[in-house]
Amino acid sequence: MTPTSTAVDRVAAAYERIRAVDRPEIWISLRDEQDALDEAASIDERVAAGETLPLAGTVAGVKDNIDAAGFDTTAAAPSYRYRPDADSTAVSRLREAGSVIIGKTNLDQFATGLVGTRSPFGAVRNAWRPDRISGGSSSGSAVAVALGLVDVALGTDTAGSGRVPAALNGIVGVKLTRGRIPTTGVVPACRTLDCVTVFAREAALAYNTAELLAGPDGIDPLERTLEEAARATGTALPARPRVGIPTAEHLDGLAPGWADAFHAAAGRLADTGVEIVEVDIAPLLQAARMLYESSFVAERYAAVGEHIDAHRELIGTDLDPSVSTIVLGGADRTAVELYRDRERLDRLGAVAKAALSGCDALLTPTTTWHPTLAEIAADPIGGNSRMGRYTNFANLLDMASSSVPAGTVDGLPFGVMITAPAFHDLAVHQLAQRLLAPALEILVVGAHLTDQPLNHQLVAAGGSFVRSTTTSSDYALFALDTTPPKPGLLRVAGDGASVAGEIWSLPASGFGTFVAALPAPMTIGRVTLADGDSVSGFLCEPIATEGAENISAHGGWLAWQRSRVVE
Amino acid sequence: MTPTSTAVDRVAAAYERIRAVDRPEIWISLRDEQDALDEAASIDERVAAGETLPLAGTVAGVKDNIDAAGFDTTAAAPSYRYRPDADSTAVSRLREAGSVIIGKTNLDQFATGLVGTRSPFGAVRNAWRPDRISGGSSSGSAVAVALGLVDVALGTDTAGSGRVPAALNGIVGVKLTRGRIPTTGVVPACRTLDCVTVFAREAALAYNTAELLAGPDGIDPLERTLEEAARATGTALPARPRVGIPTAEHLDGLAPGWADAFHAAAGRLADTGVEIVEVDIAPLLQAARMLYESSFVAERYAAVGEHIDAHRELIGTDLDPSVSTIVLGGADRTAVELYRDRERLDRLGAVAKAALSGCDALLTPTTTWHPTLAEIAADPIGGNSRMGRYTNFANLLDMASSSVPAGTVDGLPFGVMITAPAFHDLAVHQLAQRLLAPALEILVVGAHLTDQPLNHQLVAAGGSFVRSTTTSSDYALFALDTTPPKPGLLRVAGDGASVAGEIWSLPASGFGTFVAALPAPMTIGRVTLADGDSVSGFLCEPIATEGAENISAHGGWLAWQRSRVVE
Repeated sequence: MTPTSTAVDRVAAAYERIRAVDRPEIWISLRDEQDALDEAASIDERVAAGETLPLAGTVAGVKDNIDAAGFDTTAAAPSYRYRPDADSTAVSRLREAGSVIIGKTNLDQFATGLVGTRSPFGAVRNAWRPDRISGGSSSGSAVAVALGLVDVALGTDTAGSGRVPAALNGIVGVKLTRGRIPTTGVVPACRTLDCVTVFAREAALAYNTAELLAGPDGIDPLERTLEEAARATGTALPARPRVGIPTAEHLDGLAPGWADAFHAAAGRLADTGVEIVEVDIAPLLQAARMLYESSFVAERYAAVGEHIDAHRELIGTDLDPSVSTIVLGGADRTAVELYRDRERLDRLGAVAKAALSGCDALLTPTTTWHPTLAEIAADPIGGNSRMGRYTNFANLLDMASSSVPAGTVDGLPFGVMITAPAFHDLAVHQLAQRLLAPALEILVVGAHLTDQPLNHQLVAAGGSFVRSTTTSSDYALFALDTTPPKPGLLRVAGDGASVAGEIWSLPASGFGTFVAALPAPMTIGRVTLADGDSVSGFLCEPIATEGAENISAHGGWLAWQRSRVVE
Repeated sequence: MTPTSTAVDRVAAAYERIRAVDRPEIWISLRDEQDALDEAASIDERVAAGETLPLAGTVAGVKDNIDAAGFDTTAAAPSYRYRPDADSTAVSRLREAGSVIIGKTNLDQFATGLVGTRSPFGAVRNAWRPDRISGGSSSGSAVAVALGLVDVALGTDTAGSGRVPAALNGIVGVKLTRGRIPTTGVVPACRTLDCVTVFAREAALAYNTAELLAGPDGIDPLERTLEEAARATGTALPARPRVGIPTAEHLDGLAPGWADAFHAAAGRLADTGVEIVEVDIAPLLQAARMLYESSFVAERYAAVGEHIDAHRELIGTDLDPSVSTIVLGGADRTAVELYRDRERLDRLGAVAKAALSGCDALLTPTTTWHPTLAEIAADPIGGNSRMGRYTNFANLLDMASSSVPAGTVDGLPFGVMITAPAFHDLAVHQLAQRLLAPALEILVVGAHLTDQPLNHQLVAAGGSFVRSTTTSSDYALFALDTTPPKPGLLRVAGDGASVAGEIWSLPASGFGTFVAALPAPMTIGRVTLADGDSVSGFLCEPIATEGAENISAHGGWLAWQRSRVVE
């Protein structure tokens, strides 16, 4: 995941590219170039000295509602500007991992919006086509990544701010389960819902960076640990994942061509061994509407309402009118209303859980349309609210959710979103990888077969069962002296046999991890099947078969094992 | 846990005793006796036919804010009375387990109070001394159990209503983790905090009944499953539990003699192998005060406020004035206040978590004093608020908590409370058992030694390590042919050796469960130690030692194992 060039080279290239693209609205603060180069040089020195910095050589941007020492924080409201004493937890961890932060990025003010136009620092233009919106609220971060100005960028996500702009700019946006990345040092939008998110052009970099930022900091009172939850919820997808998609009714009103693009993405996921089932997402969509259309907006007033109230004369200049209207609307809701709305949400959540039961995740479009800047200017609140149909419920209902690119429609990026219950972050990522990378097949003939002792390793690597098969009759199978007991497959010259096995499908990264962890004497090579095809499969070092029993006559490992039980 | 007499006998005895004690204020509805006897007869028939009903033969009462078909529900407000169509989930499960419900019990109206006097159906008098309060709000249920009118009774607990009356009447009150017993069919007090609780005279019956009622019903949107959480949080106490107690500062103002009684209880717990440490419970006490002194009271208005508002003319007759004042006080709080209070609670929770880190549970007095009925009549709100110091925080901070008897002070029962993080219900119960029953010691010499393969069985049974020891030199130790490998200890006539082992301490019930599960050829008998004492300990059937290697010369199982590694 670390680029091979030096940090200094990459930082220098980043500034050069920033000057070349002429998108000043991306940045609220851009760091002095020499200062960034100095830090990059020290990173290079540390790496040269042997230090392990997982993000060394990466260049980063940070949304300007997240504190980074050395930069002001504005939340895109100049009147709100302050100079933080210290890094936020997320920024501190990003720097510790070796990433060089070069600036603070523009956003929909107070992270309230999904459009990227609600900022006195300027509407952020889409990376692919400047007359279109960037999406928001993490507008600058997403466009900076999409244009290759930075490798990773931090966003936040309350309604969908870490996912919608990823989709509209053709990149990956990872929103881990709420509370996994501490929000210490983040300007709250809705304190109990806010998440820090990560943008990158590749899924692995986005996810791995997010995981580097995760874990309790002892300060955030809403922090949650994956360690405990992982044991409860499982850490990986099952061998045959099931993913829900909305029924046609809830895919209405999408931009032209988007429904087809969505179904194509679902088809690609199905090709990797995922079972696709239609589910009724009505309760999710009802929950989504509550984010702005209930007393929940009072949480926005609790966060920044007093600031806006005290600076009403700045509405229309320093303070965005749409944002101010939304936030001030929360002032007068009653606590009784809030308890009733909470009850309604709880009930919707229970119905949603039942609707999704049996599914490992939900696949949806990330948003519903990609308006022009002019369209949003004409209808700033209505146009925005159409953006959040599929994103607004995730944090209300405590779900992990990531947006990944899924091709283009009419020359603009189309994104889909994978959403799963709290703590199923790895499952979301594994599904994202399946969407983005073709699956690889592997033949297993022994301890990795279904129900055998090491099968869990395939499942943990994101594997799914494809089919049972047999090799061509060119092989010998030996019972090796290993723990747990394993057979060894060897191609032999004459006197060979056909050996039974299973084909499993793994995402590329899972395949790599799996093979890299193999112990001697096992090897992976190319195995010819009875039908003449060949696949990657388990073989072994010949030395291990010396003195080992040749069990080929049994036709396979399971048959041999059964024969021993009978004895 | 099932009484040996028949259900018919026990129900008949219950009605007889109800007539004898003359405590009519316990009951809001008492079931027709013949009707109850008919149900009891059918229970007896089912048991005779071989059916397993875990609570067969028990007689139960149900707090009158919990729906039970065939009874009105009043929540102690006649104007609120309704006839439920169906059992609440808890009552349905209680009946399915074979318990016969004979009536609905009195309570502080709308479960709002800890005193037992806030009811137009009459103040419930204490079981031990009628001039004292019963405690509440589950007043009738607690007193019915304490007087032996029923075996088990259901209560609810928002602020401490399932624990305070247990303490004041000398019985056990079990409040599992919020959401484990569904609240479907329960009149809400604070919907997101309410728990269904169980009273019984013995800890095992209370806990086992509560566990029978637990588990999702697919209706309660706040339901939570232990199954998932158990894997995350562990299911039993560690071998050397650590329990926090408040510092002297936070044991001030207790009734005379209560601090001494509390420290005596802590001492008894220490005698069972528990490490007692002082912790600063200030954040817990601050959280406790928020239950009534913050916008959280709006949740009470959301529950029953409209009913009280619509019947203001009944305040002082049908509607209790204290309860009405509290509930109506929630009407005008704002949602912004509520979000800010929630943030304050979250921060207090984080500080409390840090203060309790390293502790498996917290031991406190259940309440602070035991007033007379007259004292509460003179100061109904102030007197009540003193009752909840140690109970009010448990549901706000998502903790499991049970009250158990801890002797008497001045001839009245004194209760202590064990409180632990969410889902640590079994740990709370195991500590309760340690407080209530003397620990039993057992000598282990093989696979149950510390770090050996079966040691986890002792830990799961609530065991804790006491000391290493050796037997007298009258024994022989054999390496048996078992899986996992175990030694067998036999007393021999002459030519014996001294064998190393460990003494472990188990609660009586854990000891019983452990011994009952032993496989052949292991046995438990009396073993003489080198110091002349004797303890229960592992022996084995002699037949298993035929042909087995005598390893006595090694002095113990671990020494023998080490010698084999060297070979």
